[in-house]
Amino acid sequence: MTSTVGWAAAGRQSSAEETLRALTVVPENKDSLELRDVAEPGQADGQVLIETLEVGLCGTDLEIIAGEYGEAPEGSPFLVLGHENLGRVLEAPEASGFSRGDLVVCIVRRPDPVPCPACAAGQWDMCRNGRYTEHGIKGLHGFARDRYRADPDALVRLSPSLTNVGVLLEPTTIVAKAWQHIDAIGSRAFFQPKTAVVTGAGPVGLLAALLGVQRDLDVHVFDRMTSGPKPELVRDLGATYHSESLTASGIKADVLVECTGVASVVMESVTCRALDSVTCLTGVSSTGKTEQVDVGALNRALVLGNESVFGSVNANRSHYEAAAAALEKADSGWLQRLITRRVPLTDFQDAFRRQDTDVKVVLEVKGN
Amino acid sequence: MTSTVGWAAAGRQSSAEETLRALTVVPENKDSLELRDVAEPGQADGQVLIETLEVGLCGTDLEIIAGEYGEAPEGSPFLVLGHENLGRVLEAPEASGFSRGDLVVCIVRRPDPVPCPACAAGQWDMCRNGRYTEHGIKGLHGFARDRYRADPDALVRLSPSLTNVGVLLEPTTIVAKAWQHIDAIGSRAFFQPKTAVVTGAGPVGLLAALLGVQRDLDVHVFDRMTSGPKPELVRDLGATYHSESLTASGIKADVLVECTGVASVVMESVTCRALDSVTCLTGVSSTGKTEQVDVGALNRALVLGNESVFGSVNANRSHYEAAAAALEKADSGWLQRLITRRVPLTDFQDAFRRQDTDVKVVLEVKGN
Repeated sequence: MTSTVGWAAAGRQSSAEETLRALTVVPENKDSLELRDVAEPGQADGQVLIETLEVGLCGTDLEIIAGEYGEAPEGSPFLVLGHENLGRVLEAPEASGFSRGDLVVCIVRRPDPVPCPACAAGQWDMCRNGRYTEHGIKGLHGFARDRYRADPDALVRLSPSLTNVGVLLEPTTIVAKAWQHIDAIGSRAFFQPKTAVVTGAGPVGLLAALLGVQRDLDVHVFDRMTSGPKPELVRDLGATYHSESLTASGIKADVLVECTGVASVVMESVTCRALDSVTCLTGVSSTGKTEQVDVGALNRALVLGNESVFGSVNANRSHYEAAAAALEKADSGWLQRLITRRVPLTDFQDAFRRQDTDVKVVLEVKGN
Repeated sequence: MTSTVGWAAAGRQSSAEETLRALTVVPENKDSLELRDVAEPGQADGQVLIETLEVGLCGTDLEIIAGEYGEAPEGSPFLVLGHENLGRVLEAPEASGFSRGDLVVCIVRRPDPVPCPACAAGQWDMCRNGRYTEHGIKGLHGFARDRYRADPDALVRLSPSLTNVGVLLEPTTIVAKAWQHIDAIGSRAFFQPKTAVVTGAGPVGLLAALLGVQRDLDVHVFDRMTSGPKPELVRDLGATYHSESLTASGIKADVLVECTGVASVVMESVTCRALDSVTCLTGVSSTGKTEQVDVGALNRALVLGNESVFGSVNANRSHYEAAAAALEKADSGWLQRLITRRVPLTDFQDAFRRQDTDVKVVLEVKGN
């Protein structure tokens, strides 16, 4: 079903009569997902006009569709979905530094007009007051639409060699930040990690494993799946796949990247480590279920082992650049295999029907 | 009671006939604390001969006396107690860099003769194989004796201005390391901390608060005591004393140093923080008691808040030097008030009888 609520309804200027398609939800309304016609984005949105090529889907999109998360732009009754994005520049002013045809990704999080000190320093991923906005998630429209506008400082140019896999940039930024922080935290003292553990072999876990292998670490990936593409993807990376539990494996990680957010796996992740280990938590858990924890034993082990545990969320421009470098260095064929399904925008309902063999599902926007 | 088991019994060379007094325990034997005569330390112990001035007492000593912890040197039936130390050089070879009369502290932890890579890099506080030794704790005699020998690389020279408070150096090294790691972990990204919380106003907590104040932070110290010297010591530092719980106070710490090791306080410490906070755990807990924890909620908060929690134990030479600098910068009168009792070595039993007004109790060794 399509409807025709335009940008005008969202209080935005529209300079064109043309309409475009956008995949939208009404936040906090379960089952409100629909493809609707919206007006051409106005100049107020930014100097550069971009056509969306692809949008990747993730768990946050599912939460938004389920009505559990998400916030429409001020004055708009709906939110255009999609934050993992890949596009191509259609129009750009000469002084913008961009040209027609450039392959670009738009940075998801933007600072508040009155930025906190972290945001003012370009570190909106460390926002101190929570007033940031996020395309397709919180207060800004996403990229599941034919065209959007952005200012040059929100765009990252990708090498044309990343055309087929550039939609993976945004999830790669999450692990690029995670690894940058792991390196910095480990390097507060003696740090020569050898063994890395990644829990969860979803897209974030597999990309975390890729960056671990790129650091010449002995990488072990833990996931419950015994079939589907994950075991082979891990092995083809030169890492080791485990479907048993981390505890059962006996492996002690120097570095651990937790990518499931599952409470029992989080607990294993902070107890199965080597001395001086660094554990990075990246999975957003559900809450409200308690378990029995020997807090004294956990504290004692952290203290006597000089061990660290930290959470990491989102990414700033430096992580987009690090992620682009990591993707360029990776085997393009392996990266393409992470994208297990490409679904035309018009068949969006299919894209959200979970299949066992799914790793990353991508909506093809351009020409679909 | 005194006995005369000499160094010879510990398999060490003794070049002198003289004996000296040493406060000893038989590890794993409760109530084995006694003052005994031991032989003069042999040259094999080190080039520099030092007379012990004072030894500070801490919770680890109590655990050792209770027979719960501690390990005698190989071949010795007993362990000389005391790791917090202050001494004066009696004899030193010219090439040692030390001279008679120098005020010195001996570094507590030493690397194994076959050091792990961290120990080989001078970072025995980050020892990877657990084969380190510790004076007065694990495999090396401590300093509660009239004289000891050490090699120059195990000694730190203090300014004569620290004569009255230099015995506080070792506990200060613990917090010097903690703060060095806090600064490094915080500085992985945007970090402009304003509010610091310290849980526990024992010697380690008070020294952690001192270093927080020296960093121009707004320091809040939490402790159950409402009487005794602690509230005033905190206030005279320019910090705020709280006897209510951290949760009840509503204070959100940018930096938190946990110095109690009490499970319920540890749990508060990892839940009452600001975004981007750094929590350092320094208290060694007892184990075996579980509590209900919403692990999902804790993980979610750490991830979405970019928060970090780490354990810190022991100290290397750089932390001894940082601690000496911190003590020199501090108000000497305030530091002296941390030492609430000085007890002659011969009255050692008194020293271990806990009094409500105790902060740091020190054994006077020289001339006592």
